[in-house]
Amino acid sequence: MDVIRVAAAQIKPILGDPEKNRRKIARFLELAHNDDVDLVVFPELSNSGYNFSSTEQAFATSENIPGGKTIKLLERMAHEYSMYVVVGINERDDNALYNSAVLVGPEGYVGKYRKVHLFFNEKDIFKRGNRFYVFDTRIARIGIMICFDWIFPEAARSLALQGAEIIAHPTNLVLPYWQKMAPLRALENRVYIISANRIGIEGDLTFTGRSIIVSPKGEIIAEASRTHEEIIYADIDLRLARNKNVTPKNNVFEDRLPEAYTL
Amino acid sequence: MDVIRVAAAQIKPILGDPEKNRRKIARFLELAHNDDVDLVVFPELSNSGYNFSSTEQAFATSENIPGGKTIKLLERMAHEYSMYVVVGINERDDNALYNSAVLVGPEGYVGKYRKVHLFFNEKDIFKRGNRFYVFDTRIARIGIMICFDWIFPEAARSLALQGAEIIAHPTNLVLPYWQKMAPLRALENRVYIISANRIGIEGDLTFTGRSIIVSPKGEIIAEASRTHEEIIYADIDLRLARNKNVTPKNNVFEDRLPEAYTL
Repeated sequence: MDVIRVAAAQIKPILGDPEKNRRKIARFLELAHNDDVDLVVFPELSNSGYNFSSTEQAFATSENIPGGKTIKLLERMAHEYSMYVVVGINERDDNALYNSAVLVGPEGYVGKYRKVHLFFNEKDIFKRGNRFYVFDTRIARIGIMICFDWIFPEAARSLALQGAEIIAHPTNLVLPYWQKMAPLRALENRVYIISANRIGIEGDLTFTGRSIIVSPKGEIIAEASRTHEEIIYADIDLRLARNKNVTPKNNVFEDRLPEAYTL
Repeated sequence: MDVIRVAAAQIKPILGDPEKNRRKIARFLELAHNDDVDLVVFPELSNSGYNFSSTEQAFATSENIPGGKTIKLLERMAHEYSMYVVVGINERDDNALYNSAVLVGPEGYVGKYRKVHLFFNEKDIFKRGNRFYVFDTRIARIGIMICFDWIFPEAARSLALQGAEIIAHPTNLVLPYWQKMAPLRALENRVYIISANRIGIEGDLTFTGRSIIVSPKGEIIAEASRTHEEIIYADIDLRLARNKNVTPKNNVFEDRLPEAYTL
C-alpha cells in the first residue's frame, strides 16, 4: 500500500495493574478503529507501568509473548478491527524479563522485539535483546525500537537498512531530548518514526508526553500534548520512505561508503 | 588540556579568487589570535569558492596539500599565533581534485581529510575520500568531516569512536536542516562540533550562514548570523567530551551492542 493512516496512543499505564492497562489499551484501540487507523503504536511497558518498586512487582506484571493476556487481547481486537498494533510489553521468558514490544495484525501475532539499549535502572530488571527486526506486513515494512534506543544511531540505521519504512517506537521518555532531536533520525534514514510516549509520574520519574510522528523529510507531522492521554494521527505516504534521495544526485543509502567507516 | 577556546570563522570566499581568499583567511586568523583562540575552523573550499562555472575553474583554484600557497600561509600564521586551524581546501593531486580540509598547528602541517560524501554537482568535479581521521594534537583530539557528511551518522560516529573530542566541520550549507539537527549528532557521540559555514550567493546557491558550536550535551553554545562575516567563540571543557555517560548508568559507547547492528 502507499498511503495509510497511522497513530500513536499516548496513554498513562497504571503501575502494577495489568487488568486496568488492558482495559485502557482496548479503549484506545476502539478510538483508533473509529478513525480508520491502519497502525497504532502504544508506549513502552504499556501492560505493566515502568518504575517497579521491586523485582517481584516486575515479575507479577509480566507475561509471555505470545500467549500472554495482553497479546491475546491484541490478537482478538487487531483481527476484529483489521488493524496493526505495536505495544510495549513487560515480557517474561522463563526466569528472565525483557522490555519488549509486540507487533500484532489482522492475521494474528506477527513478532516481537526485545529492547537492546536498556536505560538506567532497567539494567537491574531486564535482560537486553540482541537483534533488530523488520516485519513485512500487508500495510508496510515495520521496524521496532524502544525508547532509549533513540540515542544510538545504529538502532534506527539497522532497521532502515533492513528495509523499514516505518519505525514504531514505544517510549517512556524522561530525558528532555528526543522530541526535539527526532527529525534528524527520521531524515538520515528517510523513514517515518512513530514515537508513542506515555504521560504521568511514577515515583521520581516524570514522563514527558509529546508523542510525535516524524516524516522521512525530518518534519514533525503530528504531536501530542505533554500532559493528556490522547491519540495523534497522520496519513502517511510510504513512497516517501522508499525514496532515499535527499537531492536528485544524493541517496542516503547509495552514498554510504562502509569501508570508510570505523564502527 | 581541559579547557580551550575554539572558534568558527564564518566568511564569504570569492569564487575563483584564491589570492583574495588567502587575504581574508589571514585577516580572520588575526582576529582569532587577538581573542586568544586555540582552534579556529573555516568553511569548506575557503581557498576557491564553491559553485565552479567549469572544471577548468576548479583546477585553476586548486592547490596541493601540503605545499600549496594557502597551506604555506596557514603554516606560517599558525606557528606565529600558536594556534590550530582547520580550513576547507580545493585540493589537487595529480589530475584529481578533492574537496578536502587541512589541519595545521604551531608545529606545522598536521594532516588532511578528503570529503567522503560528496554533495550534488561536487560528484562531477571531485573524487571522494575513503577514510575518516582523528588527529592527536597538543590541545585536543580533533576529527574532521565536511559539510554533507553530516547526514550520515557513520561519519561523526567513526570520528568519535576513533577518539575525537572535537569534530571540526567546514561547511558550505545550502539545505535547511543541519543547524537545527546538529544537537543530536553531538549528543549521540558526546563530542563538540564546530560547524564553520559560509555566507553569500553563488549562481543558484544561497549559503545559509548560522555557523554553530555544539556541546556534547547537545546544546548550541555559539551561533552566527545568517548573513554576515563574523567569528563565533566558545570556551569548551574537553572533559565533557571524554565523558560518554548520559546517565550514571548509561554510556553511549559502552552501551553499544555491535553484534545487534546491521550496518
